[in-house]
Amino acid sequence: MARTADVAELVDRARAGQPRAVARLISLVEQAGPRLREVARALAPFTGRARVVGLTGAPGVGKSTSTSALVRALRARGERVGVLAVDPSSPFSGGALLGDRVRMGEHAGDPGVFIRSMATRGHLGGLSWATPQALRVLDAAGFDVVLVETVGVGQSEVEVVALADTAVVLLAPGMGDGVQAAKAGILEIADVLVVNKADRDGADATVRDLKHALSLGRREREAGLWRPPVVRTVAATGQGVADVVAAIDAHRDWLVGRGELERRRTRRAAGEVEAIAVARLRAGFAGRVGGAALEALARRVAAGELDPYAAADRLLAGPPDR
Amino acid sequence: MARTADVAELVDRARAGQPRAVARLISLVEQAGPRLREVARALAPFTGRARVVGLTGAPGVGKSTSTSALVRALRARGERVGVLAVDPSSPFSGGALLGDRVRMGEHAGDPGVFIRSMATRGHLGGLSWATPQALRVLDAAGFDVVLVETVGVGQSEVEVVALADTAVVLLAPGMGDGVQAAKAGILEIADVLVVNKADRDGADATVRDLKHALSLGRREREAGLWRPPVVRTVAATGQGVADVVAAIDAHRDWLVGRGELERRRTRRAAGEVEAIAVARLRAGFAGRVGGAALEALARRVAAGELDPYAAADRLLAGPPDR
Repeated sequence: MARTADVAELVDRARAGQPRAVARLISLVEQAGPRLREVARALAPFTGRARVVGLTGAPGVGKSTSTSALVRALRARGERVGVLAVDPSSPFSGGALLGDRVRMGEHAGDPGVFIRSMATRGHLGGLSWATPQALRVLDAAGFDVVLVETVGVGQSEVEVVALADTAVVLLAPGMGDGVQAAKAGILEIADVLVVNKADRDGADATVRDLKHALSLGRREREAGLWRPPVVRTVAATGQGVADVVAAIDAHRDWLVGRGELERRRTRRAAGEVEAIAVARLRAGFAGRVGGAALEALARRVAAGELDPYAAADRLLAGPPDR
Repeated sequence: MARTADVAELVDRARAGQPRAVARLISLVEQAGPRLREVARALAPFTGRARVVGLTGAPGVGKSTSTSALVRALRARGERVGVLAVDPSSPFSGGALLGDRVRMGEHAGDPGVFIRSMATRGHLGGLSWATPQALRVLDAAGFDVVLVETVGVGQSEVEVVALADTAVVLLAPGMGDGVQAAKAGILEIADVLVVNKADRDGADATVRDLKHALSLGRREREAGLWRPPVVRTVAATGQGVADVVAAIDAHRDWLVGRGELERRRTRRAAGEVEAIAVARLRAGFAGRVGGAALEALARRVAAGELDPYAAADRLLAGPPDR
């Protein structure tokens, strides 16, 4: 398919705003084939410009609607927006159940918007390993903002933060009160908190609880750094969405002013590099020792004949003596 | 603290039903100190007996209440129950915000129940690496059932499945309708689906949506294997909890009858062994190359001077030429 010349050409076409070239590059990244490194190399010089915003929250808070409303607001001020919807569905089906077609909705046909669902395919680490690379594609293609939307509460959020410049956490009245949010560790990773469906009963209480929980948590933060604002929205009508954009902008300014943006991006890159290195090591010993050896060791561990540390020693020591 | 002799003694005391010995062993595991391997070795011969049940669902579905109700039901038939509540809070605070004291409630002082919160401390992989080892402690200590409760939807669920014999997924009316559940990939990993708060408006619709979504998903499953039942509960009053226990038992019988239990447990052990091996490799190259080298490479990646694959090559190649 894509020969060496083609990768450079694809990058040119993606940068010229051709959505098919963007899609093709992301596919090359997702397939993790022999061209992956070549694509990564070709993209690198053009990366580092996009603002990366992570959006997360439990199912039912209105993430897709909020993403769509944010895209609309950003488009209204002329920015090109890429969306990566990370769908941690199923190690079994390996696929996103709601496809990009459903999500595109009003943005279909707008060349300034590119939306892609990324299935995580059950890889450990929550966010697909391919997501950072797809992010690089959108960044290199010149999108001003990349929104990374993830389903989930808990570990995924931590990884959204690792990936994003600004982490937006969505809650809704009655399902994300202060204590529950605190339980999920959500407050400490949010740069911007959004209470969506703010026209519903209980919105005031949710905002109050969140602010209270934030005031408790803040004491534990080192110094009085960034204070995550709590914004009310009704994403379905667009109410409050401008405030979310303003909060994201304010956080961006804060990041830049404190030199924190570079630190976050270096941390994100370090995570990427480490993940690639670990994957390579893992593939190396899986290839050397063979899946059969791991299976045999795992059987002995399951039977209580061997503890998992001793099994790991044997796995790393290579093939058994003959 | 615990000398070699002490570890054997601790295991004996844990097996004799002393909760302080159980707690001490879990602490040794959590601290990941030099005694970790020794503890793992001492536990291995006694493992493989406990039934492992994973419980998961979004914040607000009533997981803690459901766990407590399940513990009550299992205790009523004379089973000893261990609970590991995995709290993916915060890589920052590193702690469970709701302590074991809050959870213990009615079970405090019952020697047949042991409850422990595990903080994941932001480790990649969602479930704390320590959780499988804590599970081994409870298994070896002779608990008949170990409930692993996790907050979260998404990646955590996948890992609960990897860990548990039976995965119970909790939903509540109005926040986990069929489409949302499908989006979160929750249906495909559930062995038992529970609609809690079934006395609320919308419970019928949630059950109906779930059954509909299951009927769609089932076509994609290989063969007509286990059909996850949908059980209604009001955990706060105990209503329906006996049905959940019956469903867990039925799934267990199915697992045993199909030889699937051994397969799941081997897969779980394989995951453990692989995770330990990878952690060791990672520590190895981190030590060899040094965090400073990763940081320097990450800076160049963040600046677009280097792609992350090339950076990983250099990381793995060791110290730069002088």
